[in-house]
Amino acid sequence: MMFEMSSIGRVHSCFKQKFGIPRQPGLVSEARAEIEILLPYDRDEAFNGLDAFSHIWVVFVFHHCRRENWKATVRPPRLGGNQRVGVFASRSTFRPNPIGLSVVKFEGLVRRRTGLYLQISGVDLLDGTPVLDIKPYLPYADSLPQASSGYAPQAPEPAVAQLVFSELADAQCQQQAQTYPGGYAALRRLIEQLLRLDPRPAYRATTAERDEVYAMRLLDFDLKWQLRDGEIYVRCLESSPASDLNP
Amino acid sequence: MMFEMSSIGRVHSCFKQKFGIPRQPGLVSEARAEIEILLPYDRDEAFNGLDAFSHIWVVFVFHHCRRENWKATVRPPRLGGNQRVGVFASRSTFRPNPIGLSVVKFEGLVRRRTGLYLQISGVDLLDGTPVLDIKPYLPYADSLPQASSGYAPQAPEPAVAQLVFSELADAQCQQQAQTYPGGYAALRRLIEQLLRLDPRPAYRATTAERDEVYAMRLLDFDLKWQLRDGEIYVRCLESSPASDLNP
Repeated sequence: MMFEMSSIGRVHSCFKQKFGIPRQPGLVSEARAEIEILLPYDRDEAFNGLDAFSHIWVVFVFHHCRRENWKATVRPPRLGGNQRVGVFASRSTFRPNPIGLSVVKFEGLVRRRTGLYLQISGVDLLDGTPVLDIKPYLPYADSLPQASSGYAPQAPEPAVAQLVFSELADAQCQQQAQTYPGGYAALRRLIEQLLRLDPRPAYRATTAERDEVYAMRLLDFDLKWQLRDGEIYVRCLESSPASDLNP
Repeated sequence: MMFEMSSIGRVHSCFKQKFGIPRQPGLVSEARAEIEILLPYDRDEAFNGLDAFSHIWVVFVFHHCRRENWKATVRPPRLGGNQRVGVFASRSTFRPNPIGLSVVKFEGLVRRRTGLYLQISGVDLLDGTPVLDIKPYLPYADSLPQASSGYAPQAPEPAVAQLVFSELADAQCQQQAQTYPGGYAALRRLIEQLLRLDPRPAYRATTAERDEVYAMRLLDFDLKWQLRDGEIYVRCLESSPASDLNP
């Protein structure tokens, strides 16, 4: 049986490419996004009462993952990227139906001349993601802290390595912070939280050259960093036009 | 933007009509169902590793709710059925995209001659529900016990009223239990858990006549009960062909 779903919103996120996005929501509290509510769903009353909830479910489409690529098994990054599990035993983005599920912090609803926007944080959502549904998070039904969970029992441990900004990177961060809602401290926190999750592909973490430079598109810049003498070294925040890094 | 989704499974549930279904999963632990995995998704390896998880998300379609009926506000039963909130601030089944989300207990995977079946419990799923996706429940990402949740902070309190089976109902329960997997004790438990949630429509709970008899289709029978002298009185389990009770 086939079902037609239409997007009720579109995500505007700090994450401009798949590479570097946290692998679950809630891991990077500073990661902010807005959901632009599309016509004809952009009515204030459709969200009446939502402000009493701290968290919401975003049901969305993995729009960069083509269904034709569906495979019965996948290699989750949590298993080092070289062990296979069933696609239905994973949260892989490559699924028969490309539906994603993320619980995020609800920060507020804003009406602008351009439309109605839902502000959220702690996101793992790619910019441009089509949203199918918003639901309030109900702890009594949705929260099962005692549930056992196979190969992913805990959140990935953030690296404790020292994180160092180059002088250039720090100056660029101050520059970028002028248009970032939370300002300089919040932007530094975002970069730190992201890089401590080690966004390198799982197979690279073991085989990569020392000093290899990585880059991800974040907000309006390319964030470049490397691992150097046990430190996470932020080289620069390059304000070039969007490129196609690590596609 | 429109997206086509295809069902990967179909629910076989004890709940044969919408009336009487618990309003969230987990409220009736004894409520069992199977998800029949459809072609071409019925491959054992697509579920490899799932047995390490105690709970799974079922992403499904509210197939008995027509989208044309979408309204910006709904009346949740938790507010007595007479106060309106935004549809996106509710878990109502009437939504722009009729997608449902239930976390249920994973009981096992069974291969029969007729196909591959996923056994689950604690369900709030109508028989025949089309399933779009199965995902493992990850407590570190999905469980937020501290989340605040507006008008539905706790699970609905089950009634503490005494629950009495008529002689007829008890005899019929023993009869029905011969084909019920858990046997007599489990079937009694299912009926008790269900009726203690007071499945009457919210507006009836205040306006109904005393002694009014209610009926819901459960498994292969019509369960009939009434509230009598402060007791929940189970009148009978009528093994008639499926009727269209409380449609």
